[in-house]
Parts: sequence; structure tokens; C-alpha cells
Amino acid sequence: MRAQAEGHHPDLGAALEHLLSSGGKRIRPAIALLTGGMFGGNQEKLITLAAAIELLHTATLVHDDLIDGALLRRGIATLNSQWSPAATVLTGDFVFARAAQLAAETRSPEVIRLFARTLAVIVDGEITQLFSSKGVISRENYYQRIYAKTASMFELATSASSILAEVDDYVKENMREFGYGIGMAFQIVDDILDFTGEQETVGKPVANDLRQGLVTLPALYFVEAHPEHDGIREVISGKHYSEATLERVVNDIRSSGAIEKAMEEARAYVERSLEILEDMPDTPEKHALADLAHYVSDRHF
Amino acid sequence: MRAQAEGHHPDLGAALEHLLSSGGKRIRPAIALLTGGMFGGNQEKLITLAAAIELLHTATLVHDDLIDGALLRRGIATLNSQWSPAATVLTGDFVFARAAQLAAETRSPEVIRLFARTLAVIVDGEITQLFSSKGVISRENYYQRIYAKTASMFELATSASSILAEVDDYVKENMREFGYGIGMAFQIVDDILDFTGEQETVGKPVANDLRQGLVTLPALYFVEAHPEHDGIREVISGKHYSEATLERVVNDIRSSGAIEKAMEEARAYVERSLEILEDMPDTPEKHALADLAHYVSDRHF
Repeated sequence: MRAQAEGHHPDLGAALEHLLSSGGKRIRPAIALLTGGMFGGNQEKLITLAAAIELLHTATLVHDDLIDGALLRRGIATLNSQWSPAATVLTGDFVFARAAQLAAETRSPEVIRLFARTLAVIVDGEITQLFSSKGVISRENYYQRIYAKTASMFELATSASSILAEVDDYVKENMREFGYGIGMAFQIVDDILDFTGEQETVGKPVANDLRQGLVTLPALYFVEAHPEHDGIREVISGKHYSEATLERVVNDIRSSGAIEKAMEEARAYVERSLEILEDMPDTPEKHALADLAHYVSDRHF
Repeated sequence: MRAQAEGHHPDLGAALEHLLSSGGKRIRPAIALLTGGMFGGNQEKLITLAAAIELLHTATLVHDDLIDGALLRRGIATLNSQWSPAATVLTGDFVFARAAQLAAETRSPEVIRLFARTLAVIVDGEITQLFSSKGVISRENYYQRIYAKTASMFELATSASSILAEVDDYVKENMREFGYGIGMAFQIVDDILDFTGEQETVGKPVANDLRQGLVTLPALYFVEAHPEHDGIREVISGKHYSEATLERVVNDIRSSGAIEKAMEEARAYVERSLEILEDMPDTPEKHALADLAHYVSDRHF
């Protein structure tokens, strides 16, 4: 990934270094490598794919943070907090371009098509969110949103690596569903952590989503169980509310059982993914994928 | 191209319609279709490629205009003049994504690699320009800039369509050079029109480049011939100068013969491209390409 800025403008190298040094869990490339490895796929192609996926993810974060005006990501300064919007837009574009080049290097038309499709799904999801009125309370809207935002790229990781490993179509379809399930669970847990985590751990203010009028699964369950709760309506409505109101709402959500319900749902996705995994070749990679699946639903405890 | 927004957010459709309705010459897809047609390539694949190229071009314009804060493009309002930066960034990303999907649909790994490489070249050129100090007076810098900005995509149009038509490698290389020459000439003429055109025709203020500290070929020739001219140094330096100074500089450039020298250079590129064309199959498409090449160097008279 770091090699992608070689031969280009030095400031680009510095930007890429900054983006990559912030770390992150690298869960998407890990899933791609493990899935492909489980089926004995070509290691070099899988590494190229894994780097392409992580760079695609990185590029979307660069533009996302610019759009949201986010100052921190993974606890360190975002690019847009230090650079002009112009430089940030172009750096994101550059990372997209390099991700596309890596995807092209797999030389698999099917992988490349999936890759381009996933980019379109992600951007379409962001645009829909941008143009939608805030405070939408709809389960369907929520699932669509987290599919576009997160699960689509997990699906890409497992599908594309299965394609490179040349598995049968039904295996590919099962691994697509495995990735989908892990991805949905991953985002649900992220949304839970937004309520339960401490600012230092999550790297952003608590209840950040709700502050932006974004209703995630814990809040959805809470509203469904307490339709008359005045605080949550006030916060979601987008009108001015006090910090005390927000705190009260967050505390009520935390103690309502809505977090546990959301957690159960994430676990159900993981369980389904683990079932799919049972039929896969018994390799070290399979066990690592199972560990990773458990980690997705257990990481906040 | 219009179909690319189908099934997505309606505002995206409106944005794409706005972008495509502004017209433009569609010269890049025309070159791709004519080149592929000259070699009897598959019509459907060529149309897919041509649409991918024009959409890639459109996407770069969307982000460019946002970065430059341009209010007009082809005489009509830019997206960023009417929408938020967030919506503009994402619309550009969406058009990139759809361009990538169309490129992937050609199912040619070589075409897709070229496509991704071209995107990287274009963005790298924009970043280099953004990070470079203004007022750089260097022929080498100029040629690199117009290659990244324009000629690279003309090269893509002729190379990718030749690949789809499955021509021999030396024919492909010649057609790459044909596209390169037309592209270089096209941008040089554009840069000339920036000095000679009227605001109504060009769709932006006269000497717009110079106003932004961008030294193009006519200004380069002028400085080389008149290194002591105080006005041009003042304008290029980026310090404050009066509108009267700029007008004087533009008039001096116009009457200096620098425009004619730049024009000769554009014609030389076109001549070289026409020579290459002579060895190609004698088809209606070949003659249309020759007309198009002539048009590139003659369009301002």
C-alpha cells in the first residue's frame, strides 16, 4: 500500500503515510487474505486484491471525513483537518485511482466488476444519506445504509478472494453471505460502541451519530419500545436541544435494553456466518476467520 | 451515459442530466468510436468504452471545478456553484464509480489497467499543479501538465479502442501516438483560445489561466522572447497587480507572435498524427479522424 505513492508528488507520499500510519484494524484485507488462503488461492493476487480493498476503504474515509468535517479518525488528525479541501479531494481521488489500478492488476474481469460495483454502492449510499432528511426512523433505511457503508465491502472481500481462488459458484455465494453477515455485524457493533464507548477508545465524541441526526439500531429499538419518549424525539427532530437532553437520552438508551437487543442481532449475523464457515475446508485460515467473526461481536466487552 | 443514474437517488439523476446537458464536444468518445470502427472493432464494447471515457472526463471536471471554485463550465453553471461541496464531491465520486463500472464491462484487463492508470496520471497532475508554486516558467513543466490534463485521456481513447479491436502491437503503439498528438494539440489550442477568445465563446474570462498564475505556451514563448518585460513578471509573480497591467500583458502577448508560435507547435503535433493515420485502413472512420485532427488545430479561426 505504501508503495502506491512512489514516483508521485512527495506530498502525496506524506499524505498516504499519514493515512496508513493511523492503522485501523485492517479487517477487510485480513478477511480477503484468509478467505483466499482457505481455498489455496494465488498468494500474490490475493495480496494485490487485499491492498486494493484497504485502499478503496481508505479513499472513501478521506472523502467522508472531508464531507463530515471530521477532525479525528482513529484518534488521530484527519487529512481535511490539516489540508485544504482541494488537496483532500485530490488525495482521495488519487487513492481511488491506485486502488483501481491494484484491482485491475488481478486481471480478473469479474473481480474488477465487483470492485467497481462496490464503489458505486458505497457512494450511492453516501449520497442518499446526504440528501435524505435527518432523523429517519426506519429499520429498512438503517439496513440499507449499513449495507452500503460497510457490509458491501466485506462482501467484496470474501467474494473477490473466492473468485480469485476459483471456487465453485455455490461456495462463492456462501462466502459472499459470510462476508455480508460479518459486515452487517461489524457495523451494528460499531453503532453500539458509539453509545457505550468512551471518547478515548472510539476516537470520537460519544453518541456522535445521534448528534448528527443519524438513527442507528440501538436508537431504533429504543424508539420502537418508547415511542412517547420526549427526549429522543427532540434530539432526532434536528431542532436545537441541550447537551443535558442528549445525555439523558443516551443514558435512557443505555439502560433500556436496546443495546442488548442490537447486540443480539449482531450476534445472530455472526452465528449465521459461522454456520456457513462450517462447510468450508478445514484449514488454519478457516479457524482464523472464525476467530475474527467472534471478535467482531465480542470486541467491546 | 444518462442511464448510469437509473435506480439511484433522483438528485443524482438530475446532477448527471445537468452535467451531460452542458454538452461539450464529446471529442474523446468520438475518437474512441472512430478508432475502434476503423479497425472493425466490436461496436457494443466500443460504445461502452466511449461512455466510460466521457464519464471519466466528466468526473474529473466536477472535482476540478470544485477545487478551482469555477462558476461556469461551457458557459453554464457548474455543479459546485449550485450545490454544497459535499454533494459535489460525492457526485464526482459517483460518476467515477460508474465510469469504472463501464470500463470493467469491456472485460478487457488491458483496457481496464490503462483506464485506471490514466485516472492516476490525471489526478497526479492535478496534485502536482496544486502543490507547485504558481508562476512556474518551464517548458518541461508545461508539457507534463498538459499531458496529464488532456493528452493522457486522448491516448486512452485511441489505445483502449485499438486494444478492443485486437490490432497488432505496433498499430496500437502508433494509434497511442496519434491520440497523444491530437491531445497535446487540443490543449495547446485551448490555451491559445484562453488568450484570443472572447468570454462568450470560451465560457470563461479571458486570460483566465494567467490570472491563476498558470503559465501556458503563448506566455512561455512571450517570456522567452521578452525576458525583461516588467508586466508579465509582475502578473506571474502572484503579487497584486492591476487589471490594466493584465490587459497590457495580454495585448502584448497577442501582438508578439507568441500565439502564432504556439499555434505552429499545435499544428506540428497534428501533422505528425496525420502522418501516422496515413498507414491506417482506408475507411470512412479514418477520414473522419483526419477531419477531427484538422478541426483540433483550426477550430479557433
